[in-house]
Amino acid sequence: MNFPSKLIENAVNEISKLPGIGKKTALRLALHLLKQKENFTEDLTAALTDLRKEVKYCQICHNISDTDICSICSSHRRDKSIICVVEDIPDVLAIENTAQYNGLYHVLGGVISPIQGIGPEDLKIEALIQRISETEGEKVTEVILALPATMEGDTTSFFITRKLKEFGIKVSTIARGIPIGGELEYTDEITLGRSILTRVNYSAD
Amino acid sequence: MNFPSKLIENAVNEISKLPGIGKKTALRLALHLLKQKENFTEDLTAALTDLRKEVKYCQICHNISDTDICSICSSHRRDKSIICVVEDIPDVLAIENTAQYNGLYHVLGGVISPIQGIGPEDLKIEALIQRISETEGEKVTEVILALPATMEGDTTSFFITRKLKEFGIKVSTIARGIPIGGELEYTDEITLGRSILTRVNYSAD
Repeated sequence: MNFPSKLIENAVNEISKLPGIGKKTALRLALHLLKQKENFTEDLTAALTDLRKEVKYCQICHNISDTDICSICSSHRRDKSIICVVEDIPDVLAIENTAQYNGLYHVLGGVISPIQGIGPEDLKIEALIQRISETEGEKVTEVILALPATMEGDTTSFFITRKLKEFGIKVSTIARGIPIGGELEYTDEITLGRSILTRVNYSAD
Repeated sequence: MNFPSKLIENAVNEISKLPGIGKKTALRLALHLLKQKENFTEDLTAALTDLRKEVKYCQICHNISDTDICSICSSHRRDKSIICVVEDIPDVLAIENTAQYNGLYHVLGGVISPIQGIGPEDLKIEALIQRISETEGEKVTEVILALPATMEGDTTSFFITRKLKEFGIKVSTIARGIPIGGELEYTDEITLGRSILTRVNYSAD
């Protein structure tokens, strides 16, 4: 594209560096900013700058937080004996939205991926081990691995399970199977096969 | 969504005000910024701020420009007797990319839409009339209306054509029909019907 102005070309180039945004979408967004009042752009850029400069991470679970210890880790209502290990921040939001979990979290910040050059030392795995080995306060009795059902996720789950062996605590993983409302005939065979192998007891009481 | 941090909540709210971006995409973009180096966000916000604060529009055709008169309007190679009227800036880029047009442009900045409260006075229609009525320099002999094939676009074309009547210049509109490579059977009946009514002479010379 030949842009009529260096300013718009520069803005389009910067916006299109964001994931999932191409040049055409970037141009549409830039032109949208031009049609809005000037404080629209000011509010947007201020929010982004503040986020990037002042972001803090919880020193315990590594989730994003406004304080040194996040509201979940510092809450007296949460069960401190269970830690749910997730890949990233949106996973915490997703699990919190279910209102089915009352334990703590541990955000790894990614999963082990040799192709992308991400090793265990790039993730918060050592911090997790540290957290569990600390004997002060309430003891951790269970670790739930809620990592993606991909090769990288499975590798990470396997690695963490091995590391946790010496502590003799319960390690579980979230159930994989047919989604609620899902049709058997449209489910892929790996999921369906696994849902048969990992079948659970059923009672009509 | 309950965000773990006010900073991220604020950023997500601002990003999701952009067209076509929902809360989930906004969160993904915000987390992407956090994973990049700090100058990534700085470059992005600086480009947006510069664009919004320093943007200029060509005083003749109202396209975005770094100078008072844009490179198209000031070029000696362009045919100044033809003006192509378009809705907005991306349309100029699209027509320029075809390399089939060598005249000037006129960017209206929208089309007449009573539902959205956009009347002729909100667009650069008066400026177009002024431009054509000016007798200095090269005379305009043809106006090409390249507006969208919607009710709003047609209304705007109709309005402009009426206004141009007194000048006795040629007014044309871009051809509507089957796209190149398009199959007849998959074309909607309005387009197909119109392509028969507006058929053009064909010769095998």
